[in-house]
Amino acid sequence: MSYDQIGTQFVDFYYQTFDSNRAGLASLYRDSSMLSFEGSQTAGAAPIVAKLVGLPFNSVAHRIVTKDFQPVGSDIVVLVTGQLLIDGESNAQQFSQTFYLKNDNGNYFIQNDVFRLIYG
Amino acid sequence: MSYDQIGTQFVDFYYQTFDSNRAGLASLYRDSSMLSFEGSQTAGAAPIVAKLVGLPFNSVAHRIVTKDFQPVGSDIVVLVTGQLLIDGESNAQQFSQTFYLKNDNGNYFIQNDVFRLIYG
Repeated sequence: MSYDQIGTQFVDFYYQTFDSNRAGLASLYRDSSMLSFEGSQTAGAAPIVAKLVGLPFNSVAHRIVTKDFQPVGSDIVVLVTGQLLIDGESNAQQFSQTFYLKNDNGNYFIQNDVFRLIYG
Repeated sequence: MSYDQIGTQFVDFYYQTFDSNRAGLASLYRDSSMLSFEGSQTAGAAPIVAKLVGLPFNSVAHRIVTKDFQPVGSDIVVLVTGQLLIDGESNAQQFSQTFYLKNDNGNYFIQNDVFRLIYG
């Protein structure tokens, strides 16, 4: 598969899992992973998933608007922009998220994850 | 310097140079560099700078709202969000931009650059 195909698969899986079963994201992170969520830092798979599961909303739906991928050696850098709807609200919030996907013998995991809301 | 300090210096320099003398960005890219600008791909320092210099506006001003940095080994991943004003217009456009800064013996260059406008 090309880096574009791997990236697309990743983005689809990540946001489907985020919106249906946040705890299921654990398989995508490792102990070396880093998350920056609205400027707040978390490191390591278990703390990162705890942070994501503990976000103060019950349900969320992401709508992806753009996704871009570039190779970095055998790794992949990803920029996603889109909208999210929290707890059935009708006002979408804009967001932007960068991932650095690290290749471990053909298995990709999230080494870096940076999330920001965009305020209009 | 910490990766945060290096990243901050880079972001300040990049957007100041972009807004005052786009051709001056050449020193930040190398032949291995990749740019994705609104989904359009360009590779190599000279083609990337030609692309940026040729963007169809005379003047632009970036206002940075957020900047996040994370280390990837000795490299740095950067996510910037902000607004830009083109040719003195009063309606700001939101944008989001990801850089992967590669460390070459203490000198950082842009290995990857992904730019997207955010439409509200």
